Amino acid sequence: MARRLGRILRGFQSLGSLAFMKSELSNLPASVSLKSMVRALPSLFSSNPRDFSLPNSSWGTEMRQLYEHYNSQCEAVTDGGEEQGGLWNRLPSYNRSLKYAAGGVYLSKIIQAKARLFTRNIRDPGAAFEYVIFANKKEQRCVCIFQAGHLLEGPPGNVHGGAIATMIDTVTGTHACVHSGPVMTANLNINYRSPIPLGSTVLIESSLDKKEGRKTLVSCKVTSADGARLHTEATALFVSIGVSQLMKG
Amino acid sequence: MARRLGRILRGFQSLGSLAFMKSELSNLPASVSLKSMVRALPSLFSSNPRDFSLPNSSWGTEMRQLYEHYNSQCEAVTDGGEEQGGLWNRLPSYNRSLKYAAGGVYLSKIIQAKARLFTRNIRDPGAAFEYVIFANKKEQRCVCIFQAGHLLEGPPGNVHGGAIATMIDTVTGTHACVHSGPVMTANLNINYRSPIPLGSTVLIESSLDKKEGRKTLVSCKVTSADGARLHTEATALFVSIGVSQLMKG
Repeated sequence: MARRLGRILRGFQSLGSLAFMKSELSNLPASVSLKSMVRALPSLFSSNPRDFSLPNSSWGTEMRQLYEHYNSQCEAVTDGGEEQGGLWNRLPSYNRSLKYAAGGVYLSKIIQAKARLFTRNIRDPGAAFEYVIFANKKEQRCVCIFQAGHLLEGPPGNVHGGAIATMIDTVTGTHACVHSGPVMTANLNINYRSPIPLGSTVLIESSLDKKEGRKTLVSCKVTSADGARLHTEATALFVSIGVSQLMKG
Repeated sequence: MARRLGRILRGFQSLGSLAFMKSELSNLPASVSLKSMVRALPSLFSSNPRDFSLPNSSWGTEMRQLYEHYNSQCEAVTDGGEEQGGLWNRLPSYNRSLKYAAGGVYLSKIIQAKARLFTRNIRDPGAAFEYVIFANKKEQRCVCIFQAGHLLEGPPGNVHGGAIATMIDTVTGTHACVHSGPVMTANLNINYRSPIPLGSTVLIESSLDKKEGRKTLVSCKVTSADGARLHTEATALFVSIGVSQLMKG
């Protein structure tokens, strides 16, 4: 049971921002069980959904080197089908969400068919958000390698404050979900320290501050790829959706 | 002088997030004067740059009605060229920034040529951020009408927390700029109260809390179009760039 739930929760991790998931799930018709949603998952995408967390030709040297650093320490499955432990887990990332599950019809069909995850809505490699998140459950931390494309401009030549906030929400929300299961974002508090030039690769590292009842607090910092320069600091508060609520219906 | 500076500052308002503008401006080569930047402005864009704040075919009824409500109370220029006062000013919005000014070469030419403002990086009408900002200087407030497209998804069927943060940064940053001239974002503190369904139109209203030395504090709330439902509340802190710093070089 715990293992199956773990697999389900990993599915949620690809959603990026999990704000308001509680409200969202509670909007689902009572006839839709979690079991039916999970059974529907394989058919939610085209036959080969693109995993946006895998390397592509737009990734620069820093992005690739950092990816290799963490990926080489990941859990792996041997040819014999055995799982080998690792420090890290790479989290896959898709551009569609669970609303495609059977019964999840609550938006206009046009919007529903066209909807895409905000951070993965541009398919041109390298143009917008290139990122991959690794989770380290033992050490209660996540790391995201983020290469900022030319379509994320705010101040001339630098990344928009909203694009930085978007990545902070994505990484801390994923972290909270890894630790506490499905959550919704309640607060983001972001301090901007120094600009992030377009085209550069940065590290977003999150750590678990506290879990208290339904609340999960995660803090994170955004630094240059070598860790030398602090770009942004933030705290994020998430509220859990109880398993009973998740499993109802 | 004051009038000319006013025109220059209005140019900055189209940048959206102004975080780190200080650092950005200070990176400009000393040989680039503000005068030469301003002279270069008309040639920064193609002959007819698109003003994204004007209505298009994707705007729904609520978006159009709210636009007409504020636009009908705007300053206007008569056929005779005279300015007629109004409560509000509509702020134009473009997808390129001042880095195209002569001499502003500090990124790779490829990134520089392709860079687009984050909130205006998708040209397909209605797909992402449709918004227009009106400023009311007398009452020290701004209002933004925002229609959220299908490419802004976070939790299934709802707008991504990062996309909401992006609009909050954009509106409060524009407001701070209208009041204090060029600024950079120092802090965003956002409380998420209830989800915003994809496709819906919301109001983002900002008010000036305090100006203290170089600091400008702006708060804002995001509500349903009729004002009945509170979606998000936020405060934002901006730090001014002194006029002397702006005019140097």
